[in-house]
Amino acid sequence: MAGARSFHPPVRTLMGPGPSDVHPRVLAAMARPTIGHLDPAFVGMMDDLKGLLQGAFKTDNALTMPVSGPGTAGMEACFVNLVEPGDTVIVCRNGVFGERMRQNVVRCGGTAVVVDDAWGQPVDPQKVEDALKAHPEAKVLAFVHAETSTGARSDAKTLAALARRHDCLTIVDTVTSLGGIELLVDAWGLDAVYSGSQKCLSCTPGLAPLTFSDRAVARVKARTTPVQSWFLDTTLVMGYWGSAAKRSYHHTAPINALYALHESLVLLHEEGLEAAWARHARQHAALRAGLEALGLRYVVEAEWRLPQLNAVYVPEGVDDAAARRQLLDDFNLEIGGGLGDLAGKAWRIGLMGYAARPQNVLTCVAAVGAALNHQGIAADVDAAQAAVFAAYAGAKN
Amino acid sequence: MAGARSFHPPVRTLMGPGPSDVHPRVLAAMARPTIGHLDPAFVGMMDDLKGLLQGAFKTDNALTMPVSGPGTAGMEACFVNLVEPGDTVIVCRNGVFGERMRQNVVRCGGTAVVVDDAWGQPVDPQKVEDALKAHPEAKVLAFVHAETSTGARSDAKTLAALARRHDCLTIVDTVTSLGGIELLVDAWGLDAVYSGSQKCLSCTPGLAPLTFSDRAVARVKARTTPVQSWFLDTTLVMGYWGSAAKRSYHHTAPINALYALHESLVLLHEEGLEAAWARHARQHAALRAGLEALGLRYVVEAEWRLPQLNAVYVPEGVDDAAARRQLLDDFNLEIGGGLGDLAGKAWRIGLMGYAARPQNVLTCVAAVGAALNHQGIAADVDAAQAAVFAAYAGAKN
Repeated sequence: MAGARSFHPPVRTLMGPGPSDVHPRVLAAMARPTIGHLDPAFVGMMDDLKGLLQGAFKTDNALTMPVSGPGTAGMEACFVNLVEPGDTVIVCRNGVFGERMRQNVVRCGGTAVVVDDAWGQPVDPQKVEDALKAHPEAKVLAFVHAETSTGARSDAKTLAALARRHDCLTIVDTVTSLGGIELLVDAWGLDAVYSGSQKCLSCTPGLAPLTFSDRAVARVKARTTPVQSWFLDTTLVMGYWGSAAKRSYHHTAPINALYALHESLVLLHEEGLEAAWARHARQHAALRAGLEALGLRYVVEAEWRLPQLNAVYVPEGVDDAAARRQLLDDFNLEIGGGLGDLAGKAWRIGLMGYAARPQNVLTCVAAVGAALNHQGIAADVDAAQAAVFAAYAGAKN
Repeated sequence: MAGARSFHPPVRTLMGPGPSDVHPRVLAAMARPTIGHLDPAFVGMMDDLKGLLQGAFKTDNALTMPVSGPGTAGMEACFVNLVEPGDTVIVCRNGVFGERMRQNVVRCGGTAVVVDDAWGQPVDPQKVEDALKAHPEAKVLAFVHAETSTGARSDAKTLAALARRHDCLTIVDTVTSLGGIELLVDAWGLDAVYSGSQKCLSCTPGLAPLTFSDRAVARVKARTTPVQSWFLDTTLVMGYWGSAAKRSYHHTAPINALYALHESLVLLHEEGLEAAWARHARQHAALRAGLEALGLRYVVEAEWRLPQLNAVYVPEGVDDAAARRQLLDDFNLEIGGGLGDLAGKAWRIGLMGYAARPQNVLTCVAAVGAALNHQGIAADVDAAQAAVFAAYAGAKN
């Protein structure tokens, strides 16, 4: 048949909304020899991985592990475990992933009370407080810390405090925030938190780091109905991930993907979590200087901007798809298009994990400038590069 | 912290119930550079992968794709899409995975009618027919083609024909059969079929090949309730996997894991599917000769024995765990223990995919013989090796 040949992918620079550039050490780890999911050597690695993940999440939660599926499965793990039929859940929606949360609530038989904010805006704590007051029956508040569809950060600390005051648990999407910006699961009192391997952790896609507070675990144990997913039922999964003393088979763990996640967390630990946050901020400042010098405008106002996801408006007169295709074809550079309300109107330029480094900033500013020029926009690439250098020099002073 | 060091796994020979030995070309493919899940180069690879998967399943089903999770997620994908609350499902249970199917039915709000057979026995078609007659309201018949917990094959062709006669769809677990023994999805008229990447495909664990007949797709489209899993809802997933012309984001695909599955399917295509089945049978005959010469007895009678999963009773007086630990420590050889009814009583020796080769047969017979001798069992290793050679010689004549 056609296509029955080994696949050799092109070598891209991944500056979209994820997957982002994977560290070479992570790719090398992925290719190590597969061993059994109950092998004593593997079980030891699982413990290390769990400890590293607790460090990245800034938590002591015993239920901390990677779900054996993409971030979407991590989201679903939170909802199917914590939401029972008839439960009211307040869902903050300011982008694609808030809407996806709402759909999860409905599919769990819950009632979603939606708090809407405009795409590109952070979640408004006042609106959330109003909703909590209007719905004293609500059991969970769900929100996205870092909206991958818009590049907006929300104030997770304030939202979690509101939820606690109204006796709600929180479900928090940190897919794009983990490893890229400040995230303090325990200090902020977050309850059910999921992420993805392919963003600021410099890892391949396919796993969803997850952590549940003791309050969340107690809620699962107090359920009167079974968790509707056997695969994602934390009370079953923890038979495998819970204690090194006795690991019992639940499903066959994705061994090599876990090698990769482990290596990415070792890299993060070597760098230091706070140093990684600072790196994302520094590279963002340089990229922003360059993009603004090219005449691009940010979708999100400065205070709520995610350093790791730069959403900028596509300039008037530019063919979005053609420009992105040129970046891919001429420069092997992937940036992301807009989603939902921002489809065709914005580019999403990621600076996540291993992608948040000077080589990528320089490549991106030059290539985007060239693509704009190609479309007849008079963007000054030299000035943009100078702005980037000035930003780096400023960061050193 | 402790454990913040790169993990270098030991190099094992994997002859348990899976994961099984991964082909070096598959490991190499896994480490190739990550690209985006909407990259045109990746989209082309997806089409090739789909065609190769159709070939492995012997189907033309348009809905053929890998689920982005382990075999357990593949099982769940079948049940959540095809079972609605109140539906009656006949579940055949002759091992761990039949019981897991029953639990899936319950969690979908369905009613499971269980047809029990002893562990190690195939599913009895007569009992299934009786159940179909007694439950004309049944909408689905679910069974396991190759029970990984016991090493027993069931007659999928006959069971599927019975289901069709009684207007039931079939859900079929082929986790351990795909690539290892005859499996003809279209010719046998199977409807919803799932598998795993880590068994007879020589691939790493983490993905679940899945195929739905047009009848199954029609059933999903005719649902009156939403699929309870957003992640596994085939009507949504196929927005990404369905047509190369328009792939829209559903979840971020596990890019590198898909490289690996693609490469494993290329290998299978190069060998030829029927040749792979014959190889599993040939290696099984040699292993069986050796194990029986060591005095080991099979759990499953010859007609229903899976060549790729050899369940043998642990001889009287042998410490199961100590023997398996010795195999691992002294010979880097992993074989599996028993599950459920067979815990502590049986060993499960896999000959799956890349593990089904002479080197593994020779290693296994010699190492198991040594472990038996170590425990005071007078097993004749020389005679066993001679039996292996005789079996290979016989296979050539």
